[in-house]
Amino acid sequence: VKGLSVGRFVRGIRGILGQRFAPPTSLQDNPVLGLLYARRSTRRFLRTPLPADVMTAILDAGRLAPSTVNLQSWAFGVFDAASWRAAFGRGIPFGGTAAILICGDMHRPRQAIDDFPRKPLVDYTVAVMNASIAAYAMNIAAEALGVGSVMLSDTGRSGFYDGLYLREKLGLPEAVFPLMTLVLGYGAAGPGASPPKLPLDQVVFKGRYRESDPNVMKDWLDGMMSGYRAMHVVKSFKGQLRHYLSKVDEAEKGLHRMIFYAPEQSKRKGT
Amino acid sequence: VKGLSVGRFVRGIRGILGQRFAPPTSLQDNPVLGLLYARRSTRRFLRTPLPADVMTAILDAGRLAPSTVNLQSWAFGVFDAASWRAAFGRGIPFGGTAAILICGDMHRPRQAIDDFPRKPLVDYTVAVMNASIAAYAMNIAAEALGVGSVMLSDTGRSGFYDGLYLREKLGLPEAVFPLMTLVLGYGAAGPGASPPKLPLDQVVFKGRYRESDPNVMKDWLDGMMSGYRAMHVVKSFKGQLRHYLSKVDEAEKGLHRMIFYAPEQSKRKGT
Repeated sequence: VKGLSVGRFVRGIRGILGQRFAPPTSLQDNPVLGLLYARRSTRRFLRTPLPADVMTAILDAGRLAPSTVNLQSWAFGVFDAASWRAAFGRGIPFGGTAAILICGDMHRPRQAIDDFPRKPLVDYTVAVMNASIAAYAMNIAAEALGVGSVMLSDTGRSGFYDGLYLREKLGLPEAVFPLMTLVLGYGAAGPGASPPKLPLDQVVFKGRYRESDPNVMKDWLDGMMSGYRAMHVVKSFKGQLRHYLSKVDEAEKGLHRMIFYAPEQSKRKGT
Repeated sequence: VKGLSVGRFVRGIRGILGQRFAPPTSLQDNPVLGLLYARRSTRRFLRTPLPADVMTAILDAGRLAPSTVNLQSWAFGVFDAASWRAAFGRGIPFGGTAAILICGDMHRPRQAIDDFPRKPLVDYTVAVMNASIAAYAMNIAAEALGVGSVMLSDTGRSGFYDGLYLREKLGLPEAVFPLMTLVLGYGAAGPGASPPKLPLDQVVFKGRYRESDPNVMKDWLDGMMSGYRAMHVVKSFKGQLRHYLSKVDEAEKGLHRMIFYAPEQSKRKGT
């Protein structure tokens, strides 16, 4: 990643602020679509706690999400500010008032179905797919209830980047994979600008896979870097990338240990 | 998995049919919550095709979904009945009129960000998380527009169970991972009963991880087996499990090849 000139910074910011997302005119009255187009991550929260019925509805949205073979291979660790501090010795990231640590959980179905084979990558794929779907269901439910949220997977030691750490802190058994934390609370500011989204023709292919347009991707990267610069006066996107790189080796090793635990033992026990 | 006695079958069916999902009374007027609680998979479709604006809104919901570091690491292969048949030599599963093959795509961000390190399991986790979130966004958007859908990951050679097959058929580059197909269409029947959902206290933990209740899990498994038996007169849940087992070794090997492609080469190119 190269540095960002003033001209590219200005163009990048203009690109971000100029983004308008709306459903096709014929479908504009649909409240669910409206929410899906307008949803933004929240990173500043009021101290007002969430009522119990709101929290129940959010968790239910995750519980009732669809899953491969209806395995419901997820587990939700629920925290308020005090229990988060008790577990991790610090506050919920961004000052959220509640947090849900979303884990892929193949431990529970494995306890129930005794002849379920252990295949590390199939298991992991099912766990991550299902748990991610449940996570977004909870994100949408929160948004629908006027609750802001942000899904964190590599920030604040609250996701897959710190799986072994979370496993040890929370006593997670093998085949339970911490993936991300949904930080929740009432938003302290209006919705910000969306980070730069790729146009539909770059992410869709018909028939065979199609490479993306390098110019569109360059604009996107400029937008990413400009947006980051505008939001973080001192930090830069490159700095953030360096931080990410400094932890990625450890994250990779941690994932390897969690996914491929005791393969010989389970091979004897499995098929 | 043991067989199913008549008594357990009857109890299992009663359990499924007795399930009632509703938001807390105080929140019952919320249309988005209502949809999240009522959503069911559709497996029988009318031949009526989807209007173009409906398809655009569904794809936009995926495109605008949140993603780790805003990487948008997904690709959506869009098919109608004819193009699906041209690609795979058979119809869309369950007679859907449109299908979206959802892939995790780390190829595109890697093309744009040249010094992005290649870490197979970190990459795969990010790809699967983001693409699964986008998949559910499209599922919800479809539901909001009165379009039925079902997410298939191990049925009809349309997901991660057949990754190498799909890669070859569609010319997917390395680091593009087919995960599941969202089969779409107008539903030909009313919503069926929900498969058995675990109660909230089984999937939530506070503070440290808590094991699930073996009796609750036994009831859940009875419900799964009974529901399967009721829906498939000739097939059984055990038969389906055998079919799954017969393919799981191949699926595991395919995932291994897709995730850990050419590690030495990328190691030189990477960090």
